[in-house]
Amino acid sequence: MAPSEPSNATFRALDRPDLPVRRVPAGSSMVVQGAVGAEMYLLKRGRAEVRVHGAEVEEIGPGGIFGEMALIDQSTRSATVVAIEDCEIVALDEERFIQLIQDSPYFALDVMRALVVRLRAMNRRI
Amino acid sequence: MAPSEPSNATFRALDRPDLPVRRVPAGSSMVVQGAVGAEMYLLKRGRAEVRVHGAEVEEIGPGGIFGEMALIDQSTRSATVVAIEDCEIVALDEERFIQLIQDSPYFALDVMRALVVRLRAMNRRI
Repeated sequence: MAPSEPSNATFRALDRPDLPVRRVPAGSSMVVQGAVGAEMYLLKRGRAEVRVHGAEVEEIGPGGIFGEMALIDQSTRSATVVAIEDCEIVALDEERFIQLIQDSPYFALDVMRALVVRLRAMNRRI
Repeated sequence: MAPSEPSNATFRALDRPDLPVRRVPAGSSMVVQGAVGAEMYLLKRGRAEVRVHGAEVEEIGPGGIFGEMALIDQSTRSATVVAIEDCEIVALDEERFIQLIQDSPYFALDVMRALVVRLRAMNRRI
């Protein structure tokens, strides 16, 4: 929040050897709208597009997160996320997610910030 | 997240004597869209309506939170929140917010859940 605080706590929090990196080729769907999901993801490398009913609503770059909504409220995926370049992602299940929030409040803030950015974008459509 | 966890960590986390309760009469705007804000709020009693450009987008009851978006990303208020009954609210500034996240990861999860509920509601409008 203050300038002295980490600008991307998520990236640092997830950069650990016990969190393996998955490689995803361009064109692959990493999350599919309507599907059940139990993981959230950090994009370490590459770019991805977030689509709701086929319409692009956001582009995500390195350090961005996605899939956090289904992890927070156990509903189905609210959007499809497609790799538009070759990507490297880190997956977080519920247990790791809670643990990271406990270990790093700034990771929690990063997740909140990502949600707020999306909400503001949605509000502009009303 | 699991059934054994607190259903409303926010309510418990904020129920402390060092966080004074403010009384707000029905009809008052507690947050005004476009204004600068540096606090978020917990609704302890009463009901409030969230309006974006005059349109109701959500109703909030006891245990609900509002005003968290401006606190998370330091932008102007994205909505107006009006007390539709006499309300009692607890205000949290940035310092208390960070502290509560550190003290209670479930408070952080409650804030995330509130954001996700709003995002899903917005996604249904696309």
